[in-house]
Amino acid sequence: MSSKNFQDSHDVDLLNELRHSIDNIDAALIYMLSERFKCTRQIGFIKAQTNLPATDNKRESNQKQRLRALAKDSSLNPDFAEQIFDLIVSEVVKNHKDISRQLNNKQQK
Amino acid sequence: MSSKNFQDSHDVDLLNELRHSIDNIDAALIYMLSERFKCTRQIGFIKAQTNLPATDNKRESNQKQRLRALAKDSSLNPDFAEQIFDLIVSEVVKNHKDISRQLNNKQQK
Repeated sequence: MSSKNFQDSHDVDLLNELRHSIDNIDAALIYMLSERFKCTRQIGFIKAQTNLPATDNKRESNQKQRLRALAKDSSLNPDFAEQIFDLIVSEVVKNHKDISRQLNNKQQK
Repeated sequence: MSSKNFQDSHDVDLLNELRHSIDNIDAALIYMLSERFKCTRQIGFIKAQTNLPATDNKRESNQKQRLRALAKDSSLNPDFAEQIFDLIVSEVVKNHKDISRQLNNKQQK
């Protein structure tokens, strides 16, 4: 396949269309992540009030396996899906620890 | 707020319900990411065929600013949103380079 001049081709339109779809998907991802953190925030309060640890290795391991399977099923790189999950979990654990600290501070006042 | 026994409380039900929502959201995230990579794969082919570079700093910078604004608007940590975006972009660039290599190999045969 020979290379062609980008400006001369109709690929400009297709590229712009694909970028528009990506922007829409990215907005959906952000709002979806925001909803996810609403859930984990509630879980953080439950955990802090009931002295449950911020992390749950068994649950995390099950989630990871499930997400890898879903990724494979949808032709997404499972290793990449796991990296995204790990990043989310590290943010969740940070938030849970913050919530726990906040509740402890309130109790001490 | 005093700590309470987790097993004795109705929080078990709430925790399970929240975890179920998280699992649903995670599946949506995976499928959404898969769709995003379908778009970037097409872009990768356009870029490779037209000799455009795999990265586009101006586009990335605009995307980042937009995503940070969306994150702020939806009460998501903008720094976290940017970390997720960076991880996605690094995977995309990797894929674009793979596509470019594949096309070059075909041309050389």
